[in-house]
Amino acid sequence: MSVTAAKGFTAAGIAAGIKQNGNPDLALVVNTGPRRAAAGVFTSNRVKAAPVLWSQQVLADGELTAVVLNSGGANACTGPQGFQDTHATAEKVAEVLTKAGRETGAGDVAVASTGLIGVLLPMDKLLPGVERAAAELSEHGGEKAAIAIKTTDTVHKTAVVTKDGWTVGGMAKGAGMLAPGLATMLVVLTTDADVDAAGLDAALRHSTRLTFDRVDSDGCMSTNDTVLLLASGAAGVTPAQDEFAAAVQEVCADLARQLIGDAEGASKDIRIEVINAATEDDAVEVGRSIARNNLLKCAIHGEDPNWGRVLSAIGTTAAAFDPDQLNVAINGVWVCKNGSVGEDRELVDMRYREVVITADLAAGAETAVIWANDLTADYVHENSAYSS
Amino acid sequence: MSVTAAKGFTAAGIAAGIKQNGNPDLALVVNTGPRRAAAGVFTSNRVKAAPVLWSQQVLADGELTAVVLNSGGANACTGPQGFQDTHATAEKVAEVLTKAGRETGAGDVAVASTGLIGVLLPMDKLLPGVERAAAELSEHGGEKAAIAIKTTDTVHKTAVVTKDGWTVGGMAKGAGMLAPGLATMLVVLTTDADVDAAGLDAALRHSTRLTFDRVDSDGCMSTNDTVLLLASGAAGVTPAQDEFAAAVQEVCADLARQLIGDAEGASKDIRIEVINAATEDDAVEVGRSIARNNLLKCAIHGEDPNWGRVLSAIGTTAAAFDPDQLNVAINGVWVCKNGSVGEDRELVDMRYREVVITADLAAGAETAVIWANDLTADYVHENSAYSS
Repeated sequence: MSVTAAKGFTAAGIAAGIKQNGNPDLALVVNTGPRRAAAGVFTSNRVKAAPVLWSQQVLADGELTAVVLNSGGANACTGPQGFQDTHATAEKVAEVLTKAGRETGAGDVAVASTGLIGVLLPMDKLLPGVERAAAELSEHGGEKAAIAIKTTDTVHKTAVVTKDGWTVGGMAKGAGMLAPGLATMLVVLTTDADVDAAGLDAALRHSTRLTFDRVDSDGCMSTNDTVLLLASGAAGVTPAQDEFAAAVQEVCADLARQLIGDAEGASKDIRIEVINAATEDDAVEVGRSIARNNLLKCAIHGEDPNWGRVLSAIGTTAAAFDPDQLNVAINGVWVCKNGSVGEDRELVDMRYREVVITADLAAGAETAVIWANDLTADYVHENSAYSS
Repeated sequence: MSVTAAKGFTAAGIAAGIKQNGNPDLALVVNTGPRRAAAGVFTSNRVKAAPVLWSQQVLADGELTAVVLNSGGANACTGPQGFQDTHATAEKVAEVLTKAGRETGAGDVAVASTGLIGVLLPMDKLLPGVERAAAELSEHGGEKAAIAIKTTDTVHKTAVVTKDGWTVGGMAKGAGMLAPGLATMLVVLTTDADVDAAGLDAALRHSTRLTFDRVDSDGCMSTNDTVLLLASGAAGVTPAQDEFAAAVQEVCADLARQLIGDAEGASKDIRIEVINAATEDDAVEVGRSIARNNLLKCAIHGEDPNWGRVLSAIGTTAAAFDPDQLNVAINGVWVCKNGSVGEDRELVDMRYREVVITADLAAGAETAVIWANDLTADYVHENSAYSS
């Protein structure tokens, strides 16, 4: 499954020795054609890692033959040497693929990295690793690739949707530094549908805007976010654009939900539904403000339906609403009505992992859903010791 | 000291029974004149507590005779009944002061409340408490008043600056929901200088913009923030406006620093200095983004000089900078130079409570300082059990 569920792709995942604990840390995904259209969306963080700068560049022509991904180091804030290392990695992939009979230039190879910021990659391990990964490329390698891109992820994440004769599949990694704008993770999606670069780009932007962009686990935006979509055309089918975009969105939503479910230290997945907003932008702004309120995130962790913290978060936004008309439900109980005390908070059952907060702005008909996590002592522990 | 350090003020702090644990919870501050000019700044949260709405209203004429403050309940999101309760509290203060020979109307009385949002105040305890507090009013009551406004504060906070024949003093409470815009706490400042309402307002806005507005302990903005400045004129001196504003700023800065030092669950006080910014707004935006980065706050808690998280926070702002020219020092060690690896991070000594992060944007000559706290398991514990 994963990136090899669609026809026309091979993949591999190996332990190159980048991670000191010996876990898999290098993945390779190759589009074996016949087409090699591609699209990508990247972090909007202005501090971008070398592989992001590189991949944006090589995607300019709307084509990719391969993607090489490493965990164990983000190659971010690493200066000219870091960019040179990314370039050398792409060159190495092109060299070994060409040697194996698939004519490839470095400009056909996207690079993605994840791990600690501000550390150079051990190229003496990474480059030999590329050779070994290439030797292991297989139509069944998708799961191994998904495993090799994990960092603090406790599980690997894959999703597949199959339609009439064509498939969209993919893999994702991401457990911390999860906030939108765009992506905050590494994702590679593949399809055997025959869709050109423009069609891929439109489907991908539409889908990420409604899925990965609406995940806000901890408000921290990564320097390395990358979501790639590669089309092999091997199914020989060109679906209608709407149908194709819907399939891509389905895979993205599935992966996004898995990211939230595996967020660092989290004990709750919080679905924030903002309803009756004047505009979709208002709904997203309010949802994000609620998602990022540390006091509320602590309360949810404590299974405390503290709706006052929801209102204080809404109050910091510029969205259209009247404070005296706000309604808030937690797991279906309208604990706040007309900006004041509503149903008995004792009625709220918060024992399960998924918590639904509904914020009714009573200002229009637009809606948005943002996914977030609670804030826990485990999150603090995991992230106070990450680089030491 | 506290609010009674300046001449022309009496204060009291008592246990009215609003808090179930019997701790002091009601404070009264009275301006005995001869003047009664006043100014105030309030939360910019659009969800405002009843006492905030009331106090903004009664301050419209630039005069106050008294301030009544309670802890143990925020009287926020309490609807028309909440506003009525605030009104009744002010009426009660006016009544007891008038009975004691100080002609006062409810419109001369500001009200401030702090505690849990979404719960009505026990008026059957609060109103008799006002009578008892009025009976205890004293020129030495400042400290008792400061104690009575505590919620999760572990210490009461007061500050005094004395100049040539005149004094500015005050008290503050605040330990959580501490983020700017403005204030995020209750503060009452008093002076015996003879300054009119316009002079007070100018001095207070200038000072809060540079002190309380630059405290960002946890990114959460309160519904109840209130900072009041009352002038009795009892010293018979009218200082130059600049000199007066400087004294007010000194008291505000002192109290703001005390708030950060007592923030819920914090183990570190983080001074974020943004230097060489193109504009002061840029410097503040960058400082605030760094202050609110949960991953960085965890790293600081773990005494980990994780400068990559500083860069990823800077990268989310719209401030003017070139990512390849950013420099970051932690406790004086320039761990990031030109957007990449700088001095050895092992040189950074983070054993002490105060941590200084210097972010050099290399884009101009403006600067700003934001104060923040680390993110700890204690913060999570304290705030996941607050209302249960």
